[in-house]
Amino acid sequence: MDAETMTRESLQAFADRRREGFEWELRNLVEIPTISADPGCRDHMWRCAEYARDMFFRYGYEGEILETGGQPIVYGTMGRDPHLPTVTIYNHLDVQPANEPGWLTDPFRMTIDGDVFRGRGTTDDKGPAITAFYGAIAAKEANLPVNLRFLWEMEEEVGSPSFRNAMERHRGKLATDLVVVSDTIWVTRGKPSTPAGLRGLMTFVLTLETAEHDMHSGLVGGAARNPLSELMTVVAAMMDGESGKVKIPGFYDDVEKPGDEELEHWLRSGFDVDVFKRDHGIKSLRTEDPLKLMKRIWGRPTMDVHGVVGGYSGPGIKTAVPPRAEVKMSCRLVPGMDTRRTFERIRAFVAKHFPDVVVREDHSLAPFRGHVSGPHAEAVMDAYRFAFGAPCVFTREGGSIGAVKTMEDVLGAPVYFLGLSLPSHGYHAPNENYDWEQAGGGMALFARFFEHAARIGRSPEPVSAPVTA
Amino acid sequence: MDAETMTRESLQAFADRRREGFEWELRNLVEIPTISADPGCRDHMWRCAEYARDMFFRYGYEGEILETGGQPIVYGTMGRDPHLPTVTIYNHLDVQPANEPGWLTDPFRMTIDGDVFRGRGTTDDKGPAITAFYGAIAAKEANLPVNLRFLWEMEEEVGSPSFRNAMERHRGKLATDLVVVSDTIWVTRGKPSTPAGLRGLMTFVLTLETAEHDMHSGLVGGAARNPLSELMTVVAAMMDGESGKVKIPGFYDDVEKPGDEELEHWLRSGFDVDVFKRDHGIKSLRTEDPLKLMKRIWGRPTMDVHGVVGGYSGPGIKTAVPPRAEVKMSCRLVPGMDTRRTFERIRAFVAKHFPDVVVREDHSLAPFRGHVSGPHAEAVMDAYRFAFGAPCVFTREGGSIGAVKTMEDVLGAPVYFLGLSLPSHGYHAPNENYDWEQAGGGMALFARFFEHAARIGRSPEPVSAPVTA
Repeated sequence: MDAETMTRESLQAFADRRREGFEWELRNLVEIPTISADPGCRDHMWRCAEYARDMFFRYGYEGEILETGGQPIVYGTMGRDPHLPTVTIYNHLDVQPANEPGWLTDPFRMTIDGDVFRGRGTTDDKGPAITAFYGAIAAKEANLPVNLRFLWEMEEEVGSPSFRNAMERHRGKLATDLVVVSDTIWVTRGKPSTPAGLRGLMTFVLTLETAEHDMHSGLVGGAARNPLSELMTVVAAMMDGESGKVKIPGFYDDVEKPGDEELEHWLRSGFDVDVFKRDHGIKSLRTEDPLKLMKRIWGRPTMDVHGVVGGYSGPGIKTAVPPRAEVKMSCRLVPGMDTRRTFERIRAFVAKHFPDVVVREDHSLAPFRGHVSGPHAEAVMDAYRFAFGAPCVFTREGGSIGAVKTMEDVLGAPVYFLGLSLPSHGYHAPNENYDWEQAGGGMALFARFFEHAARIGRSPEPVSAPVTA
Repeated sequence: MDAETMTRESLQAFADRRREGFEWELRNLVEIPTISADPGCRDHMWRCAEYARDMFFRYGYEGEILETGGQPIVYGTMGRDPHLPTVTIYNHLDVQPANEPGWLTDPFRMTIDGDVFRGRGTTDDKGPAITAFYGAIAAKEANLPVNLRFLWEMEEEVGSPSFRNAMERHRGKLATDLVVVSDTIWVTRGKPSTPAGLRGLMTFVLTLETAEHDMHSGLVGGAARNPLSELMTVVAAMMDGESGKVKIPGFYDDVEKPGDEELEHWLRSGFDVDVFKRDHGIKSLRTEDPLKLMKRIWGRPTMDVHGVVGGYSGPGIKTAVPPRAEVKMSCRLVPGMDTRRTFERIRAFVAKHFPDVVVREDHSLAPFRGHVSGPHAEAVMDAYRFAFGAPCVFTREGGSIGAVKTMEDVLGAPVYFLGLSLPSHGYHAPNENYDWEQAGGGMALFARFFEHAARIGRSPEPVSAPVTA
């Protein structure tokens, strides 16, 4: 295969030839339990990093492990010609915990069921990482004039606490013309989509303490303040729990609404209410209108309650008044919003109306506005159509990838998205899986994108490209 | 000692002579861990019941164990003359769990520290039981013309689930002219008080399920209903968490307010805001006004949240939207209110405004209106003044004793209260204790009351005596 003959057919033949190798590498990665949230997995993280580094050497390239102060980063290199454009592909090798009920197989044994690869991390994000790796091998076999780099993080699932520091520490070595992130999800199979933006995240905790220990609700009830009842009143003052509407003054002020052209893309994305419900196991939604739903998950900020600490949660009812309670919450933010400003509005509202309640910010991630025009954005569109035979649309990602904003900030290179996961793959869910249709097509996707990148050359767009198409 | 010489001095001498025996019996009872909420304590319950039954034989009387279908009841008999009045003294021998932090000694080893007896159950309710037992021994030594019965329940701390059935099954044998319950708490040391009423209890659970499993709040947040946020909105619609005011229509309609004479008693009860706060470890109250506080704990119904099930309550924040949530709640009810009618009002309110939320009633106890006039009520007053040298006032009990209403209903005998516990004894709290001042005085209290009961004879008041003095 050379550049002239890098057709869809030759890339399919490449993928079929490499399928056994793909499955071998994926299995070996999946079977190392790289749960970044679990301190007991520290040794596994390093074992996985070493395996991934050595993989580059086994295929004739170079790999190294970057120290971050936290979990390691694997950095792979294919080509070092300073005159050629450099594309860096970001994936992550850490995974979510897998202790939720519902797993039908051992999450850390990869099972192959026809074209389906099942196990924790298969789709998030080890499968897409290995897919991009093989897409790069194809590009290198075709002698495309492009340098390729691989940045495989191992703290993505815990909010990338060391990533910014690592990027700054190794900034010189990591210089790149553009970054491709492969950790996003299509709306549905057969309809490629790529995000024009990511929501940010601002997590926080409300705490109230009114006594020293559990009180007998008969002896004190009515007189004693009850931190659980009181925090529920606070939450209900902050938001309407049914509609989800946030009542904090100014909360929506900075929201940039999606433009008409962007909404057109959304309507062509293949979003289907029933499929959305089925994919996420949802029994009841706040609205059943498809466009309203897309606006809610892609274009609007949220406020959610994630948990409560305090009181009795065992069987039956223990009629004690708890001495303290804590409510864990978060807001997803959209482009235009600022994590600090949002937290400050919430803090000020609570301080004004409920002065005894303490509001503490936990971790935050800025929202991200994507690039939807220019040669590389066009290359993304073409590569999807080439690889999957269907047009790609710009949607948004409701979730947050902390590394994205960091890479634009520190490396000064625009970030594009070549995601391959599907809602049915079960991100963060039991029986997570990935499949050969996405993997084989994904290799062609990356190879085609690298071909465009080689052709476009070293002409990065400005990072401040507008968000809407 | 005979009836003519049953002076305060002779009863003090009796108590001092019997102190060693009292401590011996109390220790043996406390060191059997009779935690009725713990299924692992089943053998201990029976061991304790047999010990208590045998105690009656050891002192020359009769005891037996009544089968209830649940935990046993110990029934002791001192005297069987059909022409004499019969007084039945109710206590309970089961205890609260003792796994809360803060215990300085093993809760199931009784430690004696001067005049203080420490251990789980010392004040609630094994100490008062043994005190009444010795008061009865004194009465019997004085040949008072009265039959005495002891009814020692072993399911009080779990809401007396078998008690009504047991009373009905053994109704004939249990016939009595009046009942004395010794399981209540004074307002403060040195100021005897006896309840003119008990609050009832109605416990219930709100449940909402909107999905099948945890959802990723980035992928679904804004669209998916969040059962935690939604139930918080429901609770905030049902009550004001800060003031505790219940917003359910009609909730307060049946409340019988305390009369002026009753409020006079309350003002003389020795209630002190600072002591109340210290006794219960309270840092902050809904009001600091003493009369308002007494009204809140004795004369007004409540609504409290006791716990939440659903979502993530570990360290940090997991940004999942939970599929279901449950809120555990209760109301304390005051005389005039009805558990069934109150539940129905709550159910109807939630059904009207939040039709997807399920409201399930858990256990309930009717409020109780006490007897504050007539010869036995006067006997209670005199016995306290005689034993403790201070006037007794009628207050209320904020908590609920399930057996009280049942005994009036099934045995048709009025119930009076001769409580001995103090707030500083730590009901349901770590380092629970009882003391010799209350025990020695308590023996005189019971002996004096039995003397009055013998004099008054078989003339029970009607059970429907008015509540207010």
